[in-house]
Amino acid sequence: MKHISDKNIIPFNNNVDYCVGTGRMGLALQKEYMEQLKFVQDGIGFSHIRGHGLFSDDMAIYHEYEENDETKVEYNFTYLDLVMDSYKEVGLKPFLELGFMPDKLSSDTQTIFYWKGNVTPPKDYKKWCNLVTATLKHLMERYGVEEVITWPIEVWNEPNLPGFWKDANMQEYFKLFEETFNAIKGLDSRFKVGGPAICGVEDELWIDEFMKFIDGKNLPVDFITRHHYTTKEHTFKGHYSYAELEDPEFRFNNLKTTRKIVDSYSKYAGLPIHITEYNTSYSPDCVIHDTNLNAAYLAHHLSRLGDDTTSYSYWTFGDIFEEKGVPFAPFHGGFGMVANHSIPKPTYYTFAFYKKLKGECIFRDDDLIVVKANDGTLRGIAWNICENKSDEKTVKLPVSIEREAGEYSLIQKIVDESTCNPLKIWHDFGEPRSLSADQIDVLKTAATPLIKSDILISNGNVEFELEINPNGVIYFELMKCNSTPDRGYEYK
Amino acid sequence: MKHISDKNIIPFNNNVDYCVGTGRMGLALQKEYMEQLKFVQDGIGFSHIRGHGLFSDDMAIYHEYEENDETKVEYNFTYLDLVMDSYKEVGLKPFLELGFMPDKLSSDTQTIFYWKGNVTPPKDYKKWCNLVTATLKHLMERYGVEEVITWPIEVWNEPNLPGFWKDANMQEYFKLFEETFNAIKGLDSRFKVGGPAICGVEDELWIDEFMKFIDGKNLPVDFITRHHYTTKEHTFKGHYSYAELEDPEFRFNNLKTTRKIVDSYSKYAGLPIHITEYNTSYSPDCVIHDTNLNAAYLAHHLSRLGDDTTSYSYWTFGDIFEEKGVPFAPFHGGFGMVANHSIPKPTYYTFAFYKKLKGECIFRDDDLIVVKANDGTLRGIAWNICENKSDEKTVKLPVSIEREAGEYSLIQKIVDESTCNPLKIWHDFGEPRSLSADQIDVLKTAATPLIKSDILISNGNVEFELEINPNGVIYFELMKCNSTPDRGYEYK
Amino acid sequence: MKHISDKNIIPFNNNVDYCVGTGRMGLALQKEYMEQLKFVQDGIGFSHIRGHGLFSDDMAIYHEYEENDETKVEYNFTYLDLVMDSYKEVGLKPFLELGFMPDKLSSDTQTIFYWKGNVTPPKDYKKWCNLVTATLKHLMERYGVEEVITWPIEVWNEPNLPGFWKDANMQEYFKLFEETFNAIKGLDSRFKVGGPAICGVEDELWIDEFMKFIDGKNLPVDFITRHHYTTKEHTFKGHYSYAELEDPEFRFNNLKTTRKIVDSYSKYAGLPIHITEYNTSYSPDCVIHDTNLNAAYLAHHLSRLGDDTTSYSYWTFGDIFEEKGVPFAPFHGGFGMVANHSIPKPTYYTFAFYKKLKGECIFRDDDLIVVKANDGTLRGIAWNICENKSDEKTVKLPVSIEREAGEYSLIQKIVDESTCNPLKIWHDFGEPRSLSADQIDVLKTAATPLIKSDILISNGNVEFELEINPNGVIYFELMKCNSTPDRGYEYK
Amino acid sequence: MKHISDKNIIPFNNNVDYCVGTGRMGLALQKEYMEQLKFVQDGIGFSHIRGHGLFSDDMAIYHEYEENDETKVEYNFTYLDLVMDSYKEVGLKPFLELGFMPDKLSSDTQTIFYWKGNVTPPKDYKKWCNLVTATLKHLMERYGVEEVITWPIEVWNEPNLPGFWKDANMQEYFKLFEETFNAIKGLDSRFKVGGPAICGVEDELWIDEFMKFIDGKNLPVDFITRHHYTTKEHTFKGHYSYAELEDPEFRFNNLKTTRKIVDSYSKYAGLPIHITEYNTSYSPDCVIHDTNLNAAYLAHHLSRLGDDTTSYSYWTFGDIFEEKGVPFAPFHGGFGMVANHSIPKPTYYTFAFYKKLKGECIFRDDDLIVVKANDGTLRGIAWNICENKSDEKTVKLPVSIEREAGEYSLIQKIVDESTCNPLKIWHDFGEPRSLSADQIDVLKTAATPLIKSDILISNGNVEFELEINPNGVIYFELMKCNSTPDRGYEYK
Repeated sequence: MKHISDKNIIPFNNNVDYCVGTGRMGLALQKEYMEQLKFVQDGIGFSHIRGHGLFSDDMAIYHEYEENDETKVEYNFTYLDLVMDSYKEVGLKPFLELGFMPDKLSSDTQTIFYWKGNVTPPKDYKKWCNLVTATLKHLMERYGVEEVITWPIEVWNEPNLPGFWKDANMQEYFKLFEETFNAIKGLDSRFKVGGPAICGVEDELWIDEFMKFIDGKNLPVDFITRHHYTTKEHTFKGHYSYAELEDPEFRFNNLKTTRKIVDSYSKYAGLPIHITEYNTSYSPDCVIHDTNLNAAYLAHHLSRLGDDTTSYSYWTFGDIFEEKGVPFAPFHGGFGMVANHSIPKPTYYTFAFYKKLKGECIFRDDDLIVVKANDGTLRGIAWNICENKSDEKTVKLPVSIEREAGEYSLIQKIVDESTCNPLKIWHDFGEPRSLSADQIDVLKTAATPLIKSDILISNGNVEFELEINPNGVIYFELMKCNSTPDRGYEYK
Repeated sequence: MKHISDKNIIPFNNNVDYCVGTGRMGLALQKEYMEQLKFVQDGIGFSHIRGHGLFSDDMAIYHEYEENDETKVEYNFTYLDLVMDSYKEVGLKPFLELGFMPDKLSSDTQTIFYWKGNVTPPKDYKKWCNLVTATLKHLMERYGVEEVITWPIEVWNEPNLPGFWKDANMQEYFKLFEETFNAIKGLDSRFKVGGPAICGVEDELWIDEFMKFIDGKNLPVDFITRHHYTTKEHTFKGHYSYAELEDPEFRFNNLKTTRKIVDSYSKYAGLPIHITEYNTSYSPDCVIHDTNLNAAYLAHHLSRLGDDTTSYSYWTFGDIFEEKGVPFAPFHGGFGMVANHSIPKPTYYTFAFYKKLKGECIFRDDDLIVVKANDGTLRGIAWNICENKSDEKTVKLPVSIEREAGEYSLIQKIVDESTCNPLKIWHDFGEPRSLSADQIDVLKTAATPLIKSDILISNGNVEFELEINPNGVIYFELMKCNSTPDRGYEYK
Repeated sequence: MKHISDKNIIPFNNNVDYCVGTGRMGLALQKEYMEQLKFVQDGIGFSHIRGHGLFSDDMAIYHEYEENDETKVEYNFTYLDLVMDSYKEVGLKPFLELGFMPDKLSSDTQTIFYWKGNVTPPKDYKKWCNLVTATLKHLMERYGVEEVITWPIEVWNEPNLPGFWKDANMQEYFKLFEETFNAIKGLDSRFKVGGPAICGVEDELWIDEFMKFIDGKNLPVDFITRHHYTTKEHTFKGHYSYAELEDPEFRFNNLKTTRKIVDSYSKYAGLPIHITEYNTSYSPDCVIHDTNLNAAYLAHHLSRLGDDTTSYSYWTFGDIFEEKGVPFAPFHGGFGMVANHSIPKPTYYTFAFYKKLKGECIFRDDDLIVVKANDGTLRGIAWNICENKSDEKTVKLPVSIEREAGEYSLIQKIVDESTCNPLKIWHDFGEPRSLSADQIDVLKTAATPLIKSDILISNGNVEFELEINPNGVIYFELMKCNSTPDRGYEYK
Repeated sequence: MKHISDKNIIPFNNNVDYCVGTGRMGLALQKEYMEQLKFVQDGIGFSHIRGHGLFSDDMAIYHEYEENDETKVEYNFTYLDLVMDSYKEVGLKPFLELGFMPDKLSSDTQTIFYWKGNVTPPKDYKKWCNLVTATLKHLMERYGVEEVITWPIEVWNEPNLPGFWKDANMQEYFKLFEETFNAIKGLDSRFKVGGPAICGVEDELWIDEFMKFIDGKNLPVDFITRHHYTTKEHTFKGHYSYAELEDPEFRFNNLKTTRKIVDSYSKYAGLPIHITEYNTSYSPDCVIHDTNLNAAYLAHHLSRLGDDTTSYSYWTFGDIFEEKGVPFAPFHGGFGMVANHSIPKPTYYTFAFYKKLKGECIFRDDDLIVVKANDGTLRGIAWNICENKSDEKTVKLPVSIEREAGEYSLIQKIVDESTCNPLKIWHDFGEPRSLSADQIDVLKTAATPLIKSDILISNGNVEFELEINPNGVIYFELMKCNSTPDRGYEYK
């Protein structure tokens, strides 16, 4: 029996809705992409969005041409405007990631991904800085200075991987960072600029060296960024990959270390740390992403992610994503909270549920978290992670909550393998690659939590039992119920 | 075990989507009304709509004024156009019911309903006929002659009740019918015109006398109309009424008798009979309408309603309805398939499910009906009616269906008291009269069928068991499954 | 030549968008009504809306029933919620007008309008006050206390007319005012409450007596309200009325007098005066409302209306209006800025243009008003009122505006009888009562201002000539133009 | 004076709405693209759409991979479904153009356009044919066999240009055609397949050789395709090009020759000829496309284009187009009828007007065309082409039309440089590259025809004068007017 009282307030930094990830900025031109994003914004509502490829050639920003035997530069913001207008329309600010390199500005030909993002340093740092400041200036003109300076700016992505930054050349990255940082602050010192956007490879070394570098140079960096993925090694097969989950504590400790390193530099102690990407698997074809297991694992994760960081941005909101090419099937292990045709995956609900967990945390353990809202409503999330078939069991969680005497409504939203599992329905349809309108309709209906309700009586405590099926996530609300039936009405 | 084979074709006249009822034509001006209607049309899609009050004063069609000491008549079709345009927009044709009487044209002051429909004969039959033909002529100009002549026309509503037709004066009704009939046929003989739109009070007498009358007058009437309600006597309390259900066979026999009477007149043998209203209770405040019991009872009913009739029009699609005044609460025992804010009630799904039962019927008994679609898919509906708490039990229905060897997808949509019961959720919320956006969202999520899927193997027969909870309705589809996983994909 | 310089700042209270009028609250349930309102809100955007009939029986709020030989009261807020939700959806707060009397609460049977609003005092003032406070309490629960206390409240409508308030009984009105005022302030003293909502009949007497009354009683009234119509006597013919316009100065003086009377009471000096209704004609069938003349006359009027008042609410936004019955034709002299099917009338643009006149006024005379916006853009409106055919002439208005040297864009939007006159097109169609989709399309296209643009050069002054056709209204913007052609582009 | 009588019926093949062009199929994934397409479909409504790049790599259809030391092929229809679903949603069928070559299937590296379409023959014709038939089979499964076989299929694009087909190798094209043709007919012989999709370079030679080839091979080709552009040589400057118009007769003769060549092969005499691309300039940066001159020139052109051809597909509907890269400015000489943000260019109205010219042609000369609709309405289009500033003059066209005595409504829609010229407004705004919401609003308002109306009296003839400004296009309707004013209404 879990005893819960709102007399105990527990620190809980719920910043689940600060930022969300997206494949590549150029994909934001797509209709299906925007429909998925609108769906996510209507149902959850993030504040920021971060993705790669702002300067990649499909955005068509950077151009050079010859005139009078001279190479001249010109910028094209036609597509940038379309993308930023679309983000604004759905209530999002960009968390700007500066990268990758326009072909014409690149020092070499190395690319990453199916869509060929150039990952080499600029051939000319002055031209790079001009590109950055010209782009920011344009945005400031179009969207207003006071607005644009609130958009966080991160320099490059995962320079600690040779695939993302040529040779994972640390000194070259520091140079890029410093030049870019100074150029932006020169434009308007109120911009918030950070890095180094690394993932979990040699991360401690990189963070430490980065801190040393900015400390030495006395750069007033505004925040530190890193990534966070929580699966073990992948095996690859055809278009797919498979991976086991890591012990979450292992990765939470990793974050704690990052926090400690940063705080060890007195100038930077307490500096915000943003996780600018996280998910279970880092591979956009890993079957886990479409499962209820993913939803349950993340439900636990989200109860803790803010402990050592300021924010954390789920990678990614939707399934329009081309890093390994265009997926062949609607369920393909993509990062998205929603599959194409805006079919929510179980993980979508983990986010929708945490979005509602605003207020004072009054209980948190490894199965359950409870928050008290301003109006006195209690909201909680419970989960039951069962990675292996053999461990699958339904968990019964008896709960006792101190509440003054009276009637209470208990509303539960239940997402588990039998109530909200579009992946299984799709599988049982025969795994069709093209969905008919009818199949989409069935899948959307299936991708809905089951609702359960009760009226409970408190005599000082409200007692009930949460029954959580394998890989289930349950959201509940407990609120005062003042039943005043209409004249003559008798419910059954 | 129910043995089903598509070698047996059973007669089944599924006309569930021919027509649906609506409170009063003037209410079709309302935004909330049209949103509910659009919801119903998107999800089900009826062909016709029938309601009262075409000529009632809120539609503002009929006017008299004095000029040069003469009383002149003028017509105003402003609101009629708005209503008909709206119907057209959602794909509906009107099943025109001619009534009630404009105040200025009435012979007396007797009214019915909170909204005061005048139920007296015209003071001047010529003016009445002119009103009818002027209205039709206007519609023909606006919507095209060829279109408008396909709209069925019914003369008045329930003249066998003194509340609906002064003194339930049969001879006066026959006069009204004859004059109106001749006026319409005089305008265009291709119009389809019928009556007498009676309900179950002295119905056999009325039908017989009506047939005698038209037979004697040699009127080439196009169809016969009557109503069909299936509850016993109501008790009233405050704003509500309560009633028990009748044995369905009793009422089916009633319809059979109507059929026999009509067929006994050789000129009219086989004439279409339209049920222009049906429901369980005839009272717009009867708590049964909002329940799963209603959905299950109607699931059985719809398997049989077409046996002796051509069509049957559920009374009504939505809950904007004012016969007893404006309801005080969102769930108030209204006739609607959907409650205000377009929250579907369980009964909505009974209709959505029958809508899909097009094809050849291959099985029908008192629990189950199965149809084979053109593309070979089998679709079925099963139900479990439990009117009394004490009778409640879950029914297990083992089914065996002849199918050639291979894999089959079985998709079930389950609507019962625990999976799709917005009434209970609303009750557990404390029966709020005003719903918050959040409550509406929870109620809509709750008002969704649970989806279950399986892959089954046939070795000549596909066998499975339907498990139907009390007052549950289950819709299922069984179709060939050709699973062709994407390269490398392994479902769990 | 008009010489304009932004060195001269002229007082100009532009509150054109504070409030707009609407026929009757119950009509807000209608779809067509809401579409017109959405159109107006998208194009103009008012803050408040005020109309009659909050307590009339079609809103169905007040009910009495008998129980245990006692008369009990109950309230029904189903329709009120629908209306208020709709207003909120389009960004409007209500300017609440308390009236008319529910039949059950009335002391007599006198009604006004086709829709029969009861205009008699309450049979029981306590029940009336309970109705008012119960309604406000309900609104506070649904929309939040802090929000609802910002909604201004006006007691009754035009009690100085015997048609609107039985016998125009002044003392009875004062009683109603005092009781209601105290009841509301007792609920929450932060509510803003005012009256007496009179029109121009014996208005000075009423205002003076009202001030005397509240002064004597020491009531801390929050604002004074009155109406303002500007046509001479009407002649009536069939469904229509005809009237000549008054000299605007005559009516402006009328407002000045009201201001003086109010200010003469020291306790109330400077109290806000809201014009809660104004238009040219006060009759909803006066042909002037659909004309360009109306637009031009109001263009002048709006340059002055705020001089002695805080706000002014145009009566009405749209043509769904039933005071004299349902109009027979799309153009019928209705009050609306937009005709049915959301066809804007010329007057709509007068409002759309004034909406943009925010900033510092730098010029105002009887032909022209110019305002300088924060970003330096100049915006102006010019008009040419020609009531009589014989006076019709095109006016040429040479203008010289001090601007620093450089290029300027001049954009004109021209609304006159030849560029934006849907009434004429409709007339030339043969005045059809039912509009086809094609005709609606042509009328909407016709109801669009003509746009004219130029690039002008300033050498200290920008000079241009506005050419205003009879009954024309011209809106213009003058802004710095920094032409930077794309590489290689040459405009003809 | 032009004398017009509906006694003279003139042959006129108005197929203006049969097909429209689009840049590249992959662009149909874009939101802005689909908004423009929806705008065009709502306002005009084409039946088919044709564009390049079905098999280009951004559509991601064709893939090869290695398995067990073998190269295997797989297809991905994810994006194809999104595109085809979008087309279906706006009522369009594809006119399928088979091309360009997937990189993996190509025999060489030559590409065309900024977006790098590979224009080399397949490295393996069998794999190419498999790709074609697999794609068609997939479409047949998803959209139905009976539907898909109605989609015309054209083999490749402009093989007569070395830029579009390596070396403009005629024999290689014939091989491609034959193999493809046979593969498709083998799948379903009801498919309609044609070619050779050439433009005006050595066109007579190519048509003749193509006919000879199919004649020799006895291929039952279903239609012949070619392109049609009507400007002289271009000069290029920066991002732009400039060109003069050709004498239209010159190009009409060109079409006549094509017709003659085809008809000279007895087996193919009368075979449909589809112009699968036409416009004034063939360059997507030619300033003429945005002008009123373009609209007027095409108004003349459309009166004649069907004389020798079955259909003609304007290149292109909108301005999302990347052949020369992403345009830097909203008006950039693009092919589109609408500019970005769905701002219609003058040419859009030429199409909207011709769309309404259905019925019997009763007059056609070099200034004017008139058609009589089924309901007796006369609809006409007149134009005034003024390519050179020095030739600009307003044309007055007196018209006399035989009509029985009575009143007639004349409605004119006027598109010319002063009434509907968004390009000029944009220029006068200073040619901004990024448009603000306000500027878009002004441009859309400006891009609306001026409407003029009159009532004319016929005494056997209706006489009026069309006044056409330079580069103006006037559409008019003349219809019987039965004015029946509402009671009491007098239009000023």
